[in-house]
Amino acid sequence: MNAEDINGFFAERDQLSMSDYLELEYYLECVGDIRETLAHFCSEQSTAQWSRVGVDEDFRELYGAKVLSWEVLEELPELSYPVEHAATGKIHACRVTIAHPHGNFGPKLPNLMTAVCGEGTYFTPGIPLVKLLDISFPDSYLARFEGPKFGIEGIRDMLGAYNRPIFFGVVKPNIGLQPVHFAEIAYQSWLGGLDIAKDDEMLADVAWSTTEVRSKLLGKARLEAEKQTGDKKIYLANITDEVDKMVEQHDIAVANGANALLINALPVGLSAVRMLRKHTKVPLIGHFPFIAAFSRLEKYGVHTKVITKLQRLAGLDAIIMPGFGNRMMTPDQEVRENIEECLNGMGSLKRTLPVPGGSDSALTLDTVFRKVGSVDFGFVPGRGIFGHPMGPKAGASSIRQAWKAIEKGIPLDSYAETCPELRAMLDK
Amino acid sequence: MNAEDINGFFAERDQLSMSDYLELEYYLECVGDIRETLAHFCSEQSTAQWSRVGVDEDFRELYGAKVLSWEVLEELPELSYPVEHAATGKIHACRVTIAHPHGNFGPKLPNLMTAVCGEGTYFTPGIPLVKLLDISFPDSYLARFEGPKFGIEGIRDMLGAYNRPIFFGVVKPNIGLQPVHFAEIAYQSWLGGLDIAKDDEMLADVAWSTTEVRSKLLGKARLEAEKQTGDKKIYLANITDEVDKMVEQHDIAVANGANALLINALPVGLSAVRMLRKHTKVPLIGHFPFIAAFSRLEKYGVHTKVITKLQRLAGLDAIIMPGFGNRMMTPDQEVRENIEECLNGMGSLKRTLPVPGGSDSALTLDTVFRKVGSVDFGFVPGRGIFGHPMGPKAGASSIRQAWKAIEKGIPLDSYAETCPELRAMLDK
Repeated sequence: MNAEDINGFFAERDQLSMSDYLELEYYLECVGDIRETLAHFCSEQSTAQWSRVGVDEDFRELYGAKVLSWEVLEELPELSYPVEHAATGKIHACRVTIAHPHGNFGPKLPNLMTAVCGEGTYFTPGIPLVKLLDISFPDSYLARFEGPKFGIEGIRDMLGAYNRPIFFGVVKPNIGLQPVHFAEIAYQSWLGGLDIAKDDEMLADVAWSTTEVRSKLLGKARLEAEKQTGDKKIYLANITDEVDKMVEQHDIAVANGANALLINALPVGLSAVRMLRKHTKVPLIGHFPFIAAFSRLEKYGVHTKVITKLQRLAGLDAIIMPGFGNRMMTPDQEVRENIEECLNGMGSLKRTLPVPGGSDSALTLDTVFRKVGSVDFGFVPGRGIFGHPMGPKAGASSIRQAWKAIEKGIPLDSYAETCPELRAMLDK
Repeated sequence: MNAEDINGFFAERDQLSMSDYLELEYYLECVGDIRETLAHFCSEQSTAQWSRVGVDEDFRELYGAKVLSWEVLEELPELSYPVEHAATGKIHACRVTIAHPHGNFGPKLPNLMTAVCGEGTYFTPGIPLVKLLDISFPDSYLARFEGPKFGIEGIRDMLGAYNRPIFFGVVKPNIGLQPVHFAEIAYQSWLGGLDIAKDDEMLADVAWSTTEVRSKLLGKARLEAEKQTGDKKIYLANITDEVDKMVEQHDIAVANGANALLINALPVGLSAVRMLRKHTKVPLIGHFPFIAAFSRLEKYGVHTKVITKLQRLAGLDAIIMPGFGNRMMTPDQEVRENIEECLNGMGSLKRTLPVPGGSDSALTLDTVFRKVGSVDFGFVPGRGIFGHPMGPKAGASSIRQAWKAIEKGIPLDSYAETCPELRAMLDK
């Protein structure tokens, strides 16, 4: 590219009608001339050849992605992670803000992903390492999406549960349990105080525990638990499946009494979530398989915050995400940002319930609550409830007892004096 | 876990009915005791809690993933890439082969992904870095998939093109061109000798170039080009869209004369490809956006070979993939492996046409051909045809001239003496 070619991929914010653009933040490791490399980066993700041969035209003004601003973070002695065939030359770590015209693809999630984290992003000459850090949408673009149908308030209203976290539990053993035993265990956990008993994200419609049979037994057990406790309960059925089966899976599960549905958003694809959002009668709750494969490293891939925003856009009413602490190998700040993206203003989209998880139990509730900083979250132990030495009912009770202790401002250890279930967890 | 707990996640191949298992190869960086960490790794991706509290049962035999073999590659002074909250202790780089019971999820691509590259894989304590390197399926599992409907032979028969590569071209300018101009340029490229003129992977159904309008014009232009040249031609329309629109997009495009369809497999989700495979009347060709986000680094994520196999399983008749050379930042060996996975025996699945791409032109054809080692590949320039100084017809001609030179064993430079189109590329 010559100097004038390069200039066509830079713009000032006030030169553009910003409602026509998404804003993208990228971390880049640039090899060689920075400005030229950034121009290539914009060109590759939009109009790579901006005129026909022999025709006086320029598609950059309407269709070109454009650098709004950039800064060099540091000069690096080598790439942060080695990349085969990477270009050689001076390396600069940069942060860049790009305006990307959404008319290039429209309000469609697969096409949006193709534009902002597709071939152009990862195959620009001179940019061996790149991470998409953030994405922002103008309200006019957000208005083309339905977003969550229920949101936090909808889930709270279903349960009549206010001013406290929502208590989930993943039924364990997660794989191999016969539906009748699965239902019995879930029932016990509801009696002990769980709001939501859920399928593991790996357990879906399988020969030895079909959605038809499992949801029928769980639907009945849920009604019985509601009768026994006087509280509303949710059975969260995992309908992750091939996309052409998901609507049918929804219909079977909901008819049988599942009153929320789990979807592994990335494996089925974000637009499959959106498809289901148009059809669903119950809240949709997302789980996070596969996301870590492209988000764990600091300087390559896609930031989880981007995926949280896209999941909310697709219509998830709650998002289960890697939580705090060593177990989930995610920086605390990143967990906080993901929680915020569920709750922040986002056009007229409803708020999504954040559910930060990872090896939780009665013993971790206080820490999670303090790190979240509000009651607007879901808490999702598995073995912390279903591996409780006194059984699942006691496991669920221990969680509710821990919450009571927090509400009353009493140390767990003191509060446990009158609560054998909590005591057993402390002694474990 | 105690020693006996750990043993439950190890097995010898001849103890297992291997037709019930997938085989998975992982690269791992293990912190701490290797055997215990590997047991956790299997447990996390299968039955994390293998019995109910107080019940004498063990789900590991039927439902547990099991280590078949493992080797330590080296002891490392530190993790290859830093990971926040990673465990501390001795670090060993390992390669492990795992038998994973496919009955845990069945013949469903989203559920398969959840099991083999989901939460369990990336959130095992003591394994901050992991890459899924390979996946193998027993024939009984493969038999549950339809695979490519046309395959290489089907595409060759459509075109009447044998004993040579298939010549694709990505119409450029890729974004912004009015359909009437797009059709004119594609028409010229067919006259020049292209087999397949294609939409860019970023160009789908947009307000300024709808599938309806574009495919109608391209369908007509294709028939006219077939009449003029006496050869069969393909217009490859990109129907990447939200999953609930793709069948309709197929129907519109095919009715208007598109006779192959492009799908961005990861953004729509692999099961959306499979859904379309059941419905399609024409070959389905996959493009690779998003795959680099989790596959570029040597020691983290998922290897492209796994994705190539899954794309073939989902039913793609051709797979466009990052090709050879510096531009695509992919090791040559990896490109070769991906090509092989399109062609290798895989149950009774048809062979898929590999299309290794990246800034190709008449000048790179010989190198690509030699590196592929056979004529069974697609060649897919963009600007190398549509940015040709004499225009798209000349651009396409230059490719066919380069192939003639290769067939005759004549150096490009000599052959170009009678071929001004090829000459122009050499002079560029």
